[in-house]
Amino acid sequence: MINYEKLFSKNAIGLKRSEIRELLKVTRIPGIISFAGGLPAPDLFPIEEVKDVTDYILEKEGKIALQYGPTEGDTRLKEELVRHMKDEGIETTVDNILIVSASQQALDLVAKIFLNRKDFVFVEEPTYVGGIQAFNSYGANMVAVKSDKDGILPESLEANIKTLIDKGFSDKLKLIYIIPDFQNPAGITTSEERRKRILDIAERYDLIVIEDTPYRQLRYSGNSITPMITLDNSDRVISLFTFSKIFAPGFRLGWIVGPKELIEKIIMAKQAADLCTSPFTQSITYEYLKRGYLEKQINIIRKDYMEKRDKMLSSLEKFMPKLEGLSWTHPEGGLFLWVNLPEYMDSRELFLKAIDKKVAFVIGEAFHPQAKCKNSFRLNFSYATKENIEEGIKRLANAIKEYEEEIKNKKFGDSVVFP
Amino acid sequence: MINYEKLFSKNAIGLKRSEIRELLKVTRIPGIISFAGGLPAPDLFPIEEVKDVTDYILEKEGKIALQYGPTEGDTRLKEELVRHMKDEGIETTVDNILIVSASQQALDLVAKIFLNRKDFVFVEEPTYVGGIQAFNSYGANMVAVKSDKDGILPESLEANIKTLIDKGFSDKLKLIYIIPDFQNPAGITTSEERRKRILDIAERYDLIVIEDTPYRQLRYSGNSITPMITLDNSDRVISLFTFSKIFAPGFRLGWIVGPKELIEKIIMAKQAADLCTSPFTQSITYEYLKRGYLEKQINIIRKDYMEKRDKMLSSLEKFMPKLEGLSWTHPEGGLFLWVNLPEYMDSRELFLKAIDKKVAFVIGEAFHPQAKCKNSFRLNFSYATKENIEEGIKRLANAIKEYEEEIKNKKFGDSVVFP
Repeated sequence: MINYEKLFSKNAIGLKRSEIRELLKVTRIPGIISFAGGLPAPDLFPIEEVKDVTDYILEKEGKIALQYGPTEGDTRLKEELVRHMKDEGIETTVDNILIVSASQQALDLVAKIFLNRKDFVFVEEPTYVGGIQAFNSYGANMVAVKSDKDGILPESLEANIKTLIDKGFSDKLKLIYIIPDFQNPAGITTSEERRKRILDIAERYDLIVIEDTPYRQLRYSGNSITPMITLDNSDRVISLFTFSKIFAPGFRLGWIVGPKELIEKIIMAKQAADLCTSPFTQSITYEYLKRGYLEKQINIIRKDYMEKRDKMLSSLEKFMPKLEGLSWTHPEGGLFLWVNLPEYMDSRELFLKAIDKKVAFVIGEAFHPQAKCKNSFRLNFSYATKENIEEGIKRLANAIKEYEEEIKNKKFGDSVVFP
Repeated sequence: MINYEKLFSKNAIGLKRSEIRELLKVTRIPGIISFAGGLPAPDLFPIEEVKDVTDYILEKEGKIALQYGPTEGDTRLKEELVRHMKDEGIETTVDNILIVSASQQALDLVAKIFLNRKDFVFVEEPTYVGGIQAFNSYGANMVAVKSDKDGILPESLEANIKTLIDKGFSDKLKLIYIIPDFQNPAGITTSEERRKRILDIAERYDLIVIEDTPYRQLRYSGNSITPMITLDNSDRVISLFTFSKIFAPGFRLGWIVGPKELIEKIIMAKQAADLCTSPFTQSITYEYLKRGYLEKQINIIRKDYMEKRDKMLSSLEKFMPKLEGLSWTHPEGGLFLWVNLPEYMDSRELFLKAIDKKVAFVIGEAFHPQAKCKNSFRLNFSYATKENIEEGIKRLANAIKEYEEEIKNKKFGDSVVFP
């Protein structure tokens, strides 16, 4: 019998199936209301527009759309993105943009060009599960930095950096990974002051900042905050964008904005990784942007998700029991909010009870490189219908109430047995 | 000024832009006849069928095609591939197949799960440039093993392995990378006897065999040879297939066939690398296969490329000067043939002369991990029209004749100065 373990790379041995993605399978039980995945609302997909545009592209330039394309991506699409980026407060050029096979590939390529095994990446606590997977696949050490409602705590970030330098790891400190806008999973937004302080730390300790901002265009309230790449004075920010949340994840399209020298290196890594991103979906997306469909689509999504967010927040307010330590975030955009349970609760136990009541979420541990955050979980509000959001939160509230009762009874029971 | 070099990973420092891909840019000069790229003939793309199928998919299941999909790939597409694989002599199951973003991603993922820095990969001499890039991006040591018209020389492979074991590298020997059918770049096919002997060596020295076979379905003469994965008795072969040459490269779709345990590990690596391959292009391709379009398309391509191969071979016969050491391969399928020049010639010098005459190829060095093969080059016969193939070979023959004259005159000149 062949022993594959002996042949695997060190990084491969560390690869595990994401537990969150395994849990998502449970949520496919019929009748379940799922707040678990991070899926966009399929009812909003602009199917008719995609059909029109695809027919047009195949007629007009089928021979190009079906052929290989340049690793750098379709220049026309990048020109459209230069325009789109301006609306988001980013002045850039075609040469500073690389088209990728969505944000997860961007994370993979960035990890590949910066990380040797055991190098350090500073992440938010909690952070995006796909970031954890990408960095883990290169054997990185991830340091989860304490965060509050305004983002990562700069003093905590700096203290962590200093400790590692003292331990002799200064050559191994590489990346700060931040999801500054309506963070996945916590729904928080990094304030402008924090952004500046993080950049200041990055500059002083010579680190690269990965600004992962898939939801930036989906703000429902409050004021837009300047992107970190725009605040950066020393060419050390790489920003990751995607069409997955504002157009269609099925196209697997995203883009990276960054300093030319870094984009050049990422292009080389991409050439070895997949030659090029689909010219077919790039051509369609170019035409879609050129016709001004994207802005309209973003407005449609914004309106719908804002209503869903409001429905989830009002349902939480209405149905959740009043417990000390039970709270949730109030995101100004994006797809997620974060629930903190009282410390004596375990979101994994609650998950099983919630599944019994036919409602699902993702446990907090999934979003921590060392599987901490035991008494918290993530709720998604983009996928379910508004009616289901109300019903699902009601079920979830009941699960929490029952769990609380059980804990109380157990405590009481315990005190009888061991008086 | 930020010093990125200090922050790059060791693997990233070793990343270089592929020279072949840079040379390809020169070949875009107007009027040039290019035998350089490896592009399929765009005139054969089944644009009408793609349009029909895409419209159908968007109408019928747009909400699924535009959404995220499973990392493993579309099960329906994999079922179609189980059927298709049977025609190619491979009995397999859905669980032994993984859909990937074309063969280059397969190479990247395979490299990722097996290779630590400085691990060894045995490759053919010459070998595929994308394989070199993928293995290089993980810091691998590549050993080019002497090959002849029947493929890699088993005794040379084994001698290389023994030398490395003697040097204490036995733990670092990992992969044998073979393109057995109508190899890119040399156009040769590994004989069944060689396949068996390579597998025997792999088994005795506990190595994994990567069978990369993007052209297998494109045979124009001779008899089909059993795939290595079918000859394998010890679960150590991974076979890579792609839709790029038999359908459309613009879809970026390929598939891996292998032992379940390895497919499982590659799925984990893929999840971290890009979450999933486009459900949109997968749905379209599933429907395309289901309607039986693929077999028809393969027949169309086979007929056209066979005629082009024949045209290139007859033009070479007709126009090339009779020089000792000048020879070329006679591929039974695929997209490429390989020209050996007399030893005193340098294909890089010839390349410049050829460009002057408005004909292009790829120099042999591009296909060697240590840039050897100085007096050889690759010709592609799928992309140019038949008329252009004849004209292009005529120009190439003239370039060689002129180059030969120049060398002779130089020699003569030399002999005058230094009698």
